[in-house]
Amino acid sequence: MRRNLTPDTDLAARLFVALRDRTFDGVGITREAYGPGERIAHALVTKAAEELGLELATDPAGNLLMTLPGVDRAAPRVVIGSHLDSVPRGGNFDGAAGVLAGLAAVSGLRRAGVTPGRDITVLAIRAEEGGAWFPTSFPGSRAALGTLPPAALAVQRMDSGRTLAAHMAEEGFDPEAVRAGQCLLPPESVAAYVELHIEQGPVLEAEQIPVGVVTGIPGSRRWRDGRVIGEYNHSGATPRRWRKDAAIALAELALRLDDAWAELEAAGHSLVCTFCVLATTAEAGFTKIPGEARFQLDIRSVSQTSVDALAARLHALVPEIAARRGVRFELGTEMTAAPTPMDAGVQAGLARAAAALGIAHRAMPSGGGHDAVAFAQAGVPAGMVFVRNQNGSHNPHEAMRLEDFAEAAAVVMHGAAAAAG
Amino acid sequence: MRRNLTPDTDLAARLFVALRDRTFDGVGITREAYGPGERIAHALVTKAAEELGLELATDPAGNLLMTLPGVDRAAPRVVIGSHLDSVPRGGNFDGAAGVLAGLAAVSGLRRAGVTPGRDITVLAIRAEEGGAWFPTSFPGSRAALGTLPPAALAVQRMDSGRTLAAHMAEEGFDPEAVRAGQCLLPPESVAAYVELHIEQGPVLEAEQIPVGVVTGIPGSRRWRDGRVIGEYNHSGATPRRWRKDAAIALAELALRLDDAWAELEAAGHSLVCTFCVLATTAEAGFTKIPGEARFQLDIRSVSQTSVDALAARLHALVPEIAARRGVRFELGTEMTAAPTPMDAGVQAGLARAAAALGIAHRAMPSGGGHDAVAFAQAGVPAGMVFVRNQNGSHNPHEAMRLEDFAEAAAVVMHGAAAAAG
Repeated sequence: MRRNLTPDTDLAARLFVALRDRTFDGVGITREAYGPGERIAHALVTKAAEELGLELATDPAGNLLMTLPGVDRAAPRVVIGSHLDSVPRGGNFDGAAGVLAGLAAVSGLRRAGVTPGRDITVLAIRAEEGGAWFPTSFPGSRAALGTLPPAALAVQRMDSGRTLAAHMAEEGFDPEAVRAGQCLLPPESVAAYVELHIEQGPVLEAEQIPVGVVTGIPGSRRWRDGRVIGEYNHSGATPRRWRKDAAIALAELALRLDDAWAELEAAGHSLVCTFCVLATTAEAGFTKIPGEARFQLDIRSVSQTSVDALAARLHALVPEIAARRGVRFELGTEMTAAPTPMDAGVQAGLARAAAALGIAHRAMPSGGGHDAVAFAQAGVPAGMVFVRNQNGSHNPHEAMRLEDFAEAAAVVMHGAAAAAG
Repeated sequence: MRRNLTPDTDLAARLFVALRDRTFDGVGITREAYGPGERIAHALVTKAAEELGLELATDPAGNLLMTLPGVDRAAPRVVIGSHLDSVPRGGNFDGAAGVLAGLAAVSGLRRAGVTPGRDITVLAIRAEEGGAWFPTSFPGSRAALGTLPPAALAVQRMDSGRTLAAHMAEEGFDPEAVRAGQCLLPPESVAAYVELHIEQGPVLEAEQIPVGVVTGIPGSRRWRDGRVIGEYNHSGATPRRWRKDAAIALAELALRLDDAWAELEAAGHSLVCTFCVLATTAEAGFTKIPGEARFQLDIRSVSQTSVDALAARLHALVPEIAARRGVRFELGTEMTAAPTPMDAGVQAGLARAAAALGIAHRAMPSGGGHDAVAFAQAGVPAGMVFVRNQNGSHNPHEAMRLEDFAEAAAVVMHGAAAAAG
């Protein structure tokens, strides 16, 4: 390891400013997937990559490959990737920081005169924010790998109602080639994938550690359309024993599941459990006992065992509370996702790089999903680096410090360079 | 007591049919306070009273007095009263049953040739449904007694936005006289007030008892604008110890107050406690920990001690949960109403009448407020009789049986006749 080898954080800093100036919407940052904001970001990054003399290529889905050639051009390459779209009125760092970290890394290598053993490709990925634009998982990175199922091209962008295929075509790309599985990064051509991302929670900030090495992406069991059906009655005239109060039944379910979560954590499990929505309906009002309530429940862990343990408690609590309180629970459709561990070798390489650079770091699970899932599920050894961030993500107040970014980018740079040999 | 003296339930039955036919809105019954539905009901009742040969008078607020003259015309009279307005899309019995019971009683007395010792006046009261039309308590009965504060004339009807005074004037009445306190039933002129009403809860039906003698109208402490302020964070990325989850804090408050209610009941208190609204806000959604929740809380009892005991638990729980869960509670404005006990002598008279007639009955608190409160607060000895009803009130499914009505009307008739001497 060459300790004087540092990422080009000045380049990244300039690009952060340009990105913010060009995609600020008056409140926050909006970079629509396959829309104007993402297009602006790709143009800015393309220009920077051209100035660095990188090899540029765009795949049929519009993912941008910016390659620093290695000694062995035929060897599987190392990819440093992230996405350039954002949620509406989001922040400047979620997604873009990973792409700029890749550019800062290859710029640092190039100005130091280093030619890696194999190609290092910075990948600017399309359409990662599935919750905001196309409700499907990682269409950009899966298209980059040739693993996107054709059905995903038919999902509609939430704001426009038009399909992913239509939006791809409008931006000048080739959905039919995507449908046929044509791609530039078949999994066997990628030796390792590394992604830098701002931490979306408060852990690194609270523990005063700038860098996290991600152990895995959580799996989840989720219920978005939960209902509790009781009976509307007069709140003054209905004694306790005649009530079928949907709200109090839901409150009991929420609190007792929260207690069960605390017990599991005390027993060594690591997981999260959230009633994202917990609400009486529009029919509720004064002098009425609530006859209906709705909820959204989200249970996540990098351990399937932990997710399943809490889901089992849910399924035990529901009939007990329903019988005792005279209500009916309808959990609705359950959505499941399996946990995706990060590659042990990539994790170890990133931790070694941080240790050698003297950068404080900790191993930690991710909270949300990331493009690294698509690579790991395709069999590519994948890893992630988190950067300390003060105000969460998906809001205008994301507050990553540049000095933290520089440390995390250095870890990515040295980790990628070591992987490239 | 003359056991062959029975209320004219055929008259009441005909009037129930006519009222339903004339004020059915396609879904339920709508009799707008100082509007078309109430006007239709007053016209029907006026015609029936004329046919009975009662003395008619209308006070400046539009309350209708239908009087069976007694032997001593100068003695304070007995009033049998109730209201003729309904909530929108309500039922046919809430309110009207009490007026028709009064007409059935005086018709029964008249056809039996009974002249009471003093006048018995059936009172058709205006605008009792404060939750639906004019958001003030019992403007009709308070105007009848001359106790309505002038400020109440300025409250606006919820649907029209026009004031109570304007609506009174539109219907041909005299708001300025009301403002001046002119009335036909000054409290000292009323010896007793009796009101029949359908039970708004399920107790009589569940216990298979047709008639209730009301012990009192509950007092209440209410919070309509409660808020819990936490912090929105990523539901996947925010570990338990960093959360400020407004929804789970509210769920805990609701469940623990519900537990405290159960404890108080076990210790002999009689009260009800309802979170009428308990809800995350529109900002809530998937992958977010709720940063805000809202609630409406309604605590009622005929015992002020019981209401205050539970409110004390509320005030103890709030800071404890707030501190532990990192949220802030804002209870907002508290609305209070003192309990109004029914007159012990009137209660005893009604119970004696029921016993003498062999009608099964029980003493019970009211759940909601009624015009009897206005009379009791003016110092008039007041009592109420509840009729068993299968489907609650304020909905199209109110289901009082006519045979139960006949028993309750008989109790009212004999109780009133006894009070009139």
